[in-house]
Amino acid sequence: MTNERYQKGIETIKQFTIPTEENPTGHMDIGEAFTDIAPDLKEIIVEFAFGDIYARPGLDKKQKVIATISALVAQGTPQIEMHVRTGLAVGLTAEEIVGCIIHLIPYTGFPRVLNSLKAAQKVFAEQGITINTSGQ
Amino acid sequence: MTNERYQKGIETIKQFTIPTEENPTGHMDIGEAFTDIAPDLKEIIVEFAFGDIYARPGLDKKQKVIATISALVAQGTPQIEMHVRTGLAVGLTAEEIVGCIIHLIPYTGFPRVLNSLKAAQKVFAEQGITINTSGQ
Amino acid sequence: MTNERYQKGIETIKQFTIPTEENPTGHMDIGEAFTDIAPDLKEIIVEFAFGDIYARPGLDKKQKVIATISALVAQGTPQIEMHVRTGLAVGLTAEEIVGCIIHLIPYTGFPRVLNSLKAAQKVFAEQGITINTSGQ
Amino acid sequence: MTNERYQKGIETIKQFTIPTEENPTGHMDIGEAFTDIAPDLKEIIVEFAFGDIYARPGLDKKQKVIATISALVAQGTPQIEMHVRTGLAVGLTAEEIVGCIIHLIPYTGFPRVLNSLKAAQKVFAEQGITINTSGQ
Amino acid sequence: MTNERYQKGIETIKQFTIPTEENPTGHMDIGEAFTDIAPDLKEIIVEFAFGDIYARPGLDKKQKVIATISALVAQGTPQIEMHVRTGLAVGLTAEEIVGCIIHLIPYTGFPRVLNSLKAAQKVFAEQGITINTSGQ
Amino acid sequence: MTNERYQKGIETIKQFTIPTEENPTGHMDIGEAFTDIAPDLKEIIVEFAFGDIYARPGLDKKQKVIATISALVAQGTPQIEMHVRTGLAVGLTAEEIVGCIIHLIPYTGFPRVLNSLKAAQKVFAEQGITINTSGQ
Repeated sequence: MTNERYQKGIETIKQFTIPTEENPTGHMDIGEAFTDIAPDLKEIIVEFAFGDIYARPGLDKKQKVIATISALVAQGTPQIEMHVRTGLAVGLTAEEIVGCIIHLIPYTGFPRVLNSLKAAQKVFAEQGITINTSGQ
Repeated sequence: MTNERYQKGIETIKQFTIPTEENPTGHMDIGEAFTDIAPDLKEIIVEFAFGDIYARPGLDKKQKVIATISALVAQGTPQIEMHVRTGLAVGLTAEEIVGCIIHLIPYTGFPRVLNSLKAAQKVFAEQGITINTSGQ
Repeated sequence: MTNERYQKGIETIKQFTIPTEENPTGHMDIGEAFTDIAPDLKEIIVEFAFGDIYARPGLDKKQKVIATISALVAQGTPQIEMHVRTGLAVGLTAEEIVGCIIHLIPYTGFPRVLNSLKAAQKVFAEQGITINTSGQ
Repeated sequence: MTNERYQKGIETIKQFTIPTEENPTGHMDIGEAFTDIAPDLKEIIVEFAFGDIYARPGLDKKQKVIATISALVAQGTPQIEMHVRTGLAVGLTAEEIVGCIIHLIPYTGFPRVLNSLKAAQKVFAEQGITINTSGQ
Repeated sequence: MTNERYQKGIETIKQFTIPTEENPTGHMDIGEAFTDIAPDLKEIIVEFAFGDIYARPGLDKKQKVIATISALVAQGTPQIEMHVRTGLAVGLTAEEIVGCIIHLIPYTGFPRVLNSLKAAQKVFAEQGITINTSGQ
Repeated sequence: MTNERYQKGIETIKQFTIPTEENPTGHMDIGEAFTDIAPDLKEIIVEFAFGDIYARPGLDKKQKVIATISALVAQGTPQIEMHVRTGLAVGLTAEEIVGCIIHLIPYTGFPRVLNSLKAAQKVFAEQGITINTSGQ
């Protein structure tokens, strides 16, 4: 695709993930799994979600991921894993991601926070990331 | 109250609001409106929400408010106004707050974002805050 | 209406409200406000919600109202006032109703609890009900 | 931990579960699975959720569990299993728990109720609990 | 704006509303109230929500509005009024709109349905629309 | 069961599914899995959900399923699969079902839409249904 908004979207995704040769959009889910039933979904995600919204000035990258994770914790949806990966990709530490989720206890209650911590824990384990908790 | 956690909570609140002489906890709602039916609610809010959670290391103050606002946009609750005030109090600009809300369109849909922008707009107007939109 | 399920529904409603001569179904909203656009709604509410569900054995009346209020606090919907009235009608005290709402903080977060307390407080004030908080 | 609020929390948990020697807090999830990424979570849950909230006077134990289950059915979260266990531990019968979930149909709709019944059914089966349905 | 996607969006909006000379986008809220804090919001709504999504083939116009109203009833958000107007604009009758909302009782519960019926009733009254209920 | 409302419910279900000899109510979940803990649930579903609500005039069958699917996408519940089957049974094409789900992006955000597309995709694959996407 050489469409301008699409290119802008791809360039934006690269700032929020760790692109590789086999996977230029890194870990980011851009709807390719649904090409057989909705081939336009990928364009919608790349162009709108990333090209228009993620690229929009205002918050910095870390803040954008914090906002995303927080909205998803509140909704209790399973995409938390993907956005924890995004958080790590933009330089949030595991402590900051855990801090974000735990901060939401007064707003979403414990169950959604615990479910989200479970997802975060899984990603940290996959990536061999540990938290130094000795000072706590 | 001289309880240690309560004091910690009050000190934490002061970092997230602009305290005045008449109102040491600034604009923050700490449940005092319900003293007649639940006098312990104020302690619960000050000690737990602020003394334990808001004081917890991890995210910085701006990030904590971004997380809070995002969770509330996702829930569609009316406390958005209060937390927009908190955002301004910790140094988030109006552009950053608007950026946070608009960033959530791909996660919460437009209606909740529009309702939240309306609340933010009201707070900006009250405080005489404008956004320089000429570059947009 | 002499339909058996309808009669059962009306009899059930009377157990959850304080019927008067002018208002045999007391404070309970049974959809009569929508007779002009959906006349069958009243039957649906009286027969199904009350005749089938509220009449179902299992929980006692107070427990049923606690379940209802809790689900509504979690949803953040405005019908809380009506169900606080129902709670008082079946003998729950104001302390028990406040206790129910505050119990939900770990599950729904503070905003929804505060909004629900506001609704409860309004009903208590209307009915001149106070809580003895001296022991707290 | 010998902290007063922590002890109060542990004592409160014991009233809502069936403690054993190997597992003094019975079936209750107190966040120990996350000790490696958030060691303070356990204190937060034990001290706040149980020491402050669950211990608060107002509702009796069965009513507190009914409130909890109802809020979770409304949210559609997976912790329902744990709280069904809590319900059985405080003396709610399987009929009362089923009655609580079914009572919510007019408030949460059928899907969330069916998903919650599935969780309850699993717990009853694990504990060899049956319901005498011959009279229904 | 002569941008192609923007024009497509405006043309699409016109199919879902009753444009007038003073108001070419009819009753549709396209974010113009927020021009002072987010001037790009209007483009986002017109180009993405309408130019990309509303214009997408698949469902017919009435079905698209039914889908929208249903999602909003489930969320309990206040934009229901606007979409009831959209429904009437594309030729849904008041009976069909009421039928859509009432159909959701088994999925969203009664409170959200009643709140939505109230919004629909308000729009019908404004437009002098009545329902012939004699056959019901 | 020869109860009139029950029969009406069964007849209604047959219009929304493809009945077979072994399974007269086709793929529709009517609560039979819970007969051991709530034998009345089946009657409640058949008589109320189908006999009263699904049979109610207003929307046509396709519109009713679109409304249902949309409310469930908004709620993020797992019953989407069953209702996609219902959609196919009443004659909605795969494109229309995908169109319905994608139409909701501006109202529910992407995660819930993606999760719902995954459920729809699974059902299409099971039934060997493909979408001709060459024109897109």
